[in-house]
Amino acid sequence: MTYIPPIADQKFLLDHIVKLDQLNGHQGFAGTSPDLVDAILAGVGELAAGVFAPLNRTGDQIGAKWSPEGVTMPPGFREGYRAYVEGGWGTLAAPQEFGGQGLPLSLATVVMEDLGSANMGFSLVAMLSAGAVEALPEHGSAELNALWLPKIVSGEWPATMNLTEPQAGSDVGALKTRAVRQADGSYRIKGQKIFITYGDHDLAENIVHLVLARTPDAPEGTKGISLFLVPKFRLGADGAPAESNDVRPASIEHKMGIHASPTCVMAYGDNDDCVGWIVGEENGGMRGMFTMMNNARLNVGLQGVSIAERATQAAVAYASERIQGTRAGAASRDPVRIIEHADVRRMLLRMKALTQAARALAYYAAGQTDRASRGDGAAKARIDLLTPLVKAYGTDVGEEVASLGVQVHGGMGYIEETGAAQHYRDVRISRIYEGTNGIQAADLVGRKIGLEGGHTLASLFADIRRDSAGEAVLRDLVDACEAIASRLQSASADDRMAASYPFLTMLSVATCGWLMLLQRRVAEGDEGDPNFLAMKRAAAAFYLEQIVHEAMGLQAAAAAPADILYSVNEEMFAT
Amino acid sequence: MTYIPPIADQKFLLDHIVKLDQLNGHQGFAGTSPDLVDAILAGVGELAAGVFAPLNRTGDQIGAKWSPEGVTMPPGFREGYRAYVEGGWGTLAAPQEFGGQGLPLSLATVVMEDLGSANMGFSLVAMLSAGAVEALPEHGSAELNALWLPKIVSGEWPATMNLTEPQAGSDVGALKTRAVRQADGSYRIKGQKIFITYGDHDLAENIVHLVLARTPDAPEGTKGISLFLVPKFRLGADGAPAESNDVRPASIEHKMGIHASPTCVMAYGDNDDCVGWIVGEENGGMRGMFTMMNNARLNVGLQGVSIAERATQAAVAYASERIQGTRAGAASRDPVRIIEHADVRRMLLRMKALTQAARALAYYAAGQTDRASRGDGAAKARIDLLTPLVKAYGTDVGEEVASLGVQVHGGMGYIEETGAAQHYRDVRISRIYEGTNGIQAADLVGRKIGLEGGHTLASLFADIRRDSAGEAVLRDLVDACEAIASRLQSASADDRMAASYPFLTMLSVATCGWLMLLQRRVAEGDEGDPNFLAMKRAAAAFYLEQIVHEAMGLQAAAAAPADILYSVNEEMFAT
Repeated sequence: MTYIPPIADQKFLLDHIVKLDQLNGHQGFAGTSPDLVDAILAGVGELAAGVFAPLNRTGDQIGAKWSPEGVTMPPGFREGYRAYVEGGWGTLAAPQEFGGQGLPLSLATVVMEDLGSANMGFSLVAMLSAGAVEALPEHGSAELNALWLPKIVSGEWPATMNLTEPQAGSDVGALKTRAVRQADGSYRIKGQKIFITYGDHDLAENIVHLVLARTPDAPEGTKGISLFLVPKFRLGADGAPAESNDVRPASIEHKMGIHASPTCVMAYGDNDDCVGWIVGEENGGMRGMFTMMNNARLNVGLQGVSIAERATQAAVAYASERIQGTRAGAASRDPVRIIEHADVRRMLLRMKALTQAARALAYYAAGQTDRASRGDGAAKARIDLLTPLVKAYGTDVGEEVASLGVQVHGGMGYIEETGAAQHYRDVRISRIYEGTNGIQAADLVGRKIGLEGGHTLASLFADIRRDSAGEAVLRDLVDACEAIASRLQSASADDRMAASYPFLTMLSVATCGWLMLLQRRVAEGDEGDPNFLAMKRAAAAFYLEQIVHEAMGLQAAAAAPADILYSVNEEMFAT
Repeated sequence: MTYIPPIADQKFLLDHIVKLDQLNGHQGFAGTSPDLVDAILAGVGELAAGVFAPLNRTGDQIGAKWSPEGVTMPPGFREGYRAYVEGGWGTLAAPQEFGGQGLPLSLATVVMEDLGSANMGFSLVAMLSAGAVEALPEHGSAELNALWLPKIVSGEWPATMNLTEPQAGSDVGALKTRAVRQADGSYRIKGQKIFITYGDHDLAENIVHLVLARTPDAPEGTKGISLFLVPKFRLGADGAPAESNDVRPASIEHKMGIHASPTCVMAYGDNDDCVGWIVGEENGGMRGMFTMMNNARLNVGLQGVSIAERATQAAVAYASERIQGTRAGAASRDPVRIIEHADVRRMLLRMKALTQAARALAYYAAGQTDRASRGDGAAKARIDLLTPLVKAYGTDVGEEVASLGVQVHGGMGYIEETGAAQHYRDVRISRIYEGTNGIQAADLVGRKIGLEGGHTLASLFADIRRDSAGEAVLRDLVDACEAIASRLQSASADDRMAASYPFLTMLSVATCGWLMLLQRRVAEGDEGDPNFLAMKRAAAAFYLEQIVHEAMGLQAAAAAPADILYSVNEEMFAT
């Protein structure tokens, strides 16, 4: 049940995939010495392992509790959150003018990964604020940002994202919450939101909601959506939370997992006294929302990595202790630890390979985001292309690895006390929220493969090909992806959507295969812990020899037109 | 949340895959008219939908409760169980001399499927008794069977299987429970068992435990295991339960799912007053256990089908109602039901195809079991070969389909009220109990592919090839399976085990592809409901064109030697 931060792999990725040395102190990033990077990795690891991880089971068993007075967090969470705020862990990548440290997002990625591994339900409070910290500087007015951002950055006033309504889930344009402009430039907000993560809690003295709503004469659909900052408490003259703002959690959901995370139904303006301030222009709310959403999508993909890491650690530990059965074909009839059995090792190595590959993709994306934020157009295009892959493939990996983790534990994996079951239940939401993985696949084939007239995708293929001489299967997979993408660009919308998910998986595996190959080459040197390097080589080999090959099996699905799907109707499905 | 028994597909399989007409009234089976078969399908469907299904959520939310006095089942379960017993649903395939109806197991398979779909946690009480009803007539003495079997067959005294102990899970030979012979021929039993499904409950006036134990001078390992019948209450002179038999549930487990099913730690003979009667010979207990286990493995594979069916029904219903988003590329901007979106249809059709394929495999296996039980040696060999496939592939499908079911529901899938999450949690145990799926894979490559010097497997390949002219991908998959099997037969134990799981999946898909192909040919005719036939053709086409192709992607894994797994050690895994 303990958690050990995977510092060696994180450091390896920061050095060789993110290439942090290119970022530190350049392009307006604050400077960091290698010592400072090490201190950050060690420090957040300590917070995660020492404070967040011990609260993981409490969070699951007790969970967040709702009452008419609001949401109460499980015991220990207030103290845990205070440690997070006091350590300044939310400030790393925030702008220095708002109290942030101005460091690359790649470093903040380590923070989110560790906290997510330690306690996914708890870490969401930090994740949501990170989205606001990206969106407000870009879209909010100077006055608004001066008033609110420093407290969001510090973590004293955590932020939330309010998009979903009962009729508006994946289709956010269907939302109905109203915002009416007042004489003083503020707005009155009225409406109901659902699935609001950390919509209410008792961790902090204020909560800053970022709420999508429509002004009375707004056009239909996404073109008529505006973004508002709506606090739980309005501020007094001294800048401290004072008056209640007519915002109320109406209930919380009873979910399969992440019980610590209060998923709220939020009621805004029941008494017509809910004030909000606009972020950006009227009807321009989608831009701010996309900033938040893209940040959140990368962080949700990272949650898949977080749980995969934790589940793998637990499985390795269990398999190294549990004694059961003799090894097939061995001379000795003495029972062995189950890590000695080939099929258990296959599961463990698969877990390692998938986790390392998904982490490499997420960290690579963070590095590209850092470059994009400093004006690198090619990096911007690439991160736009990769965002759906990070989110969908990262969380698909999270579920598969958590399931393997249960399996390695055998019967004990199904018993809640072990913790393997909680990882499996917790991670399942990650394939759904922040745009289901199907939505990610639609985004990939509907918009991303055509970016820059197809150049963005072609340049990714070119990079992979350049580095993969002699890797026949990886090259085959890239060829297959290119052929499918070329067909999809001129295919009907139905055919594109029918192929979207298998194609997303193929392209993700090709990209991860490339990143694992690059790492294997580094690991063939002898710089670093020999055990770590040996595992890196084995994980890369397993990924390239087996998982890349598996993805080739998806070719038929990615090449199949939609005909077969529409050959059956609802009545036939019901037989 | 409703459940509709899939009678059309069940009937189709009984007719065209089981070929029930060859069994009814022949070879010692009781005769059934088509009307009687229809009545059985309708009757058990009514019990499942009307009585078991409404208790599914109660079972999950309230669950079985332990106290020092024993286990209390959730409200409604006593009445539900009474309906099952009074309907005689446990008696179908039992021998007529013990109060059974002497019908083919293939018909009892429908009963187990429906009850498992309706309420998996509840259906286990029936499943466990079925194992005893197979084992006792074959291995128990006439006297013992006369006394106990009729009440087990009727369901009045449900049976359990007691194998596992803390140190003896997959390695059953390590068990320590003791049995000491008394002057009257009975035995005193003493020991502790864990993970005992329905080890205690308040559904019936007695419980009949079948317990593996060792006599004092027994040899080590599985060769020294004997099987005992150990009731909860000993019988009085009138044959009714009288005296307590010093059997006690010490606790129950807190599990991820199947909360209705009490998973007990059982204490036998704490007061040295636990009496058991031997089933078969001393040290011959493994034979009886294998009979029970093989039956249970087929039924657990069927649980995967049960939950896949239920999850698919729920997803189809939700997707047919939930309105969200416009259809990509459509002229109309009106939002549509999500079943109109291509990627949602892909998920639904995949669910249908996997469910129908796994059902076909399970029913085919039941038909072969019926033939084997009447002396058909080829059928016996084939069912031995297929048992690990039914168990492992059936439950792998169960998990995948239940996960897709959650996904189709989007955010609602993660909320417990929908029911999709319960299916996902419930079905997860099926890949673990009755021999983990890894154990099934080891059984396949360790024992089953070599049956009859390889002839059993060769004859399956020959059957598939005979029927698959023109099906290039299926033939490729059979060729690939044959090549791998041939290599594995002479490979080292490590290499065999390393390849076992991917090979099991490939062989399962090849077999299912064959059964789907046979069904597609029938469905190309026009006999039956046109909607059902259209879905059958689409499901078969999807399976043959996409899923069979996917399995080809496992070739590299199934061909890889174990070297890579043993290139890393425990210390490396921990980095």
